[in-house]
Amino acid sequence: MLRSPQEPNRNGGIRTPSPRSRNQSQFHSTVSVQKNRRFNILILIFRFAAFCFSLASAIFMFANSHGGGSDSDSDSLRWYHFDAFRFVAIAAGIVALYSLFEIGASVWEISRGTTVLPEIVQVWFDFSHDQVFAYMLLSADSAGTALARTLKDRDTCTANNAFCVQSDISVALGFAGFMFLSFSSLLSGFRVVCFVLNGSRFHM
Amino acid sequence: MLRSPQEPNRNGGIRTPSPRSRNQSQFHSTVSVQKNRRFNILILIFRFAAFCFSLASAIFMFANSHGGGSDSDSDSLRWYHFDAFRFVAIAAGIVALYSLFEIGASVWEISRGTTVLPEIVQVWFDFSHDQVFAYMLLSADSAGTALARTLKDRDTCTANNAFCVQSDISVALGFAGFMFLSFSSLLSGFRVVCFVLNGSRFHM
Repeated sequence: MLRSPQEPNRNGGIRTPSPRSRNQSQFHSTVSVQKNRRFNILILIFRFAAFCFSLASAIFMFANSHGGGSDSDSDSLRWYHFDAFRFVAIAAGIVALYSLFEIGASVWEISRGTTVLPEIVQVWFDFSHDQVFAYMLLSADSAGTALARTLKDRDTCTANNAFCVQSDISVALGFAGFMFLSFSSLLSGFRVVCFVLNGSRFHM
Repeated sequence: MLRSPQEPNRNGGIRTPSPRSRNQSQFHSTVSVQKNRRFNILILIFRFAAFCFSLASAIFMFANSHGGGSDSDSDSLRWYHFDAFRFVAIAAGIVALYSLFEIGASVWEISRGTTVLPEIVQVWFDFSHDQVFAYMLLSADSAGTALARTLKDRDTCTANNAFCVQSDISVALGFAGFMFLSFSSLLSGFRVVCFVLNGSRFHM
């Protein structure tokens, strides 16, 4: 039941286009394509924001190694010594990569009018990955917050304050990335339901 | 633009019912009402499961006080001594109360054919609260997991193992509750989009 991706204007949400209503259909298609374009640009903005924040979060956490001396030195603190911080760094990295791919797919769709993957695969792929990665990022950052609070209770942070501050910044950036990712998840969910109900990603 | 909630059969997804197609319209309405009923029963099952798991999680955490002696005794461990465990207990409690309310609303809708609140308020209320509470529960349980792991690294768990085991059980039950809540969130999101597109919560 895949539609030809080369003809996005022909199936713009009109259910039964009869020959006599071609002008009206043409008009509706144009409105639909314009609305779809605006919708895609909104998604693109959210994805770009999610990319920036999650990339910054990942960089801050991956670079979070403080205290002189070698790795086995008890004074030095590294992000990979802590489970939750490993989770934060890796989750933010995965979300940054995924957002980069989705930015590419979104730009492709806006410029060419067709999706990168077949339409049915694309809408379900976007929605499911948005959902799962949003939950993953939130989970990672909550765990990171809990660990950061525990470290403050112990004497770790008085001994090496820069490590704690950098962890806090990374976790906060991750929460911002989660917020934008959950917005895009709402929009891509809307696209899935439009596709299920109308057989097209256009929402008219 | 609120429709009368007393007439759910009349607006069952049919957009322009003309007099000559009344039989067909009647048939479609009946199919739509049956489908809607099955959909509501599915939501009810998910909500009931979310209620059971989150209630169990809350009870396990609220009852998590081990070690003899008074509250100020350094040997005794109480759930409210730890931020993340407080978060787990309260989030699970809130979700249990919310699920109980939603079970009532769902039973009302199945038995009487109308929603408790006006239809537009009900679909948006359900979806927004499902989303927010699902994120809240996941966040709480992730933080609880991170804290539980930290406690295991310290010597707390060797001194008082029952406290750690009970916390782990509570967090695991919370994750199960989150899973069912996120399923109901998907279904109520579907209902919102049906309402936005068709002006009715029926999905035909």
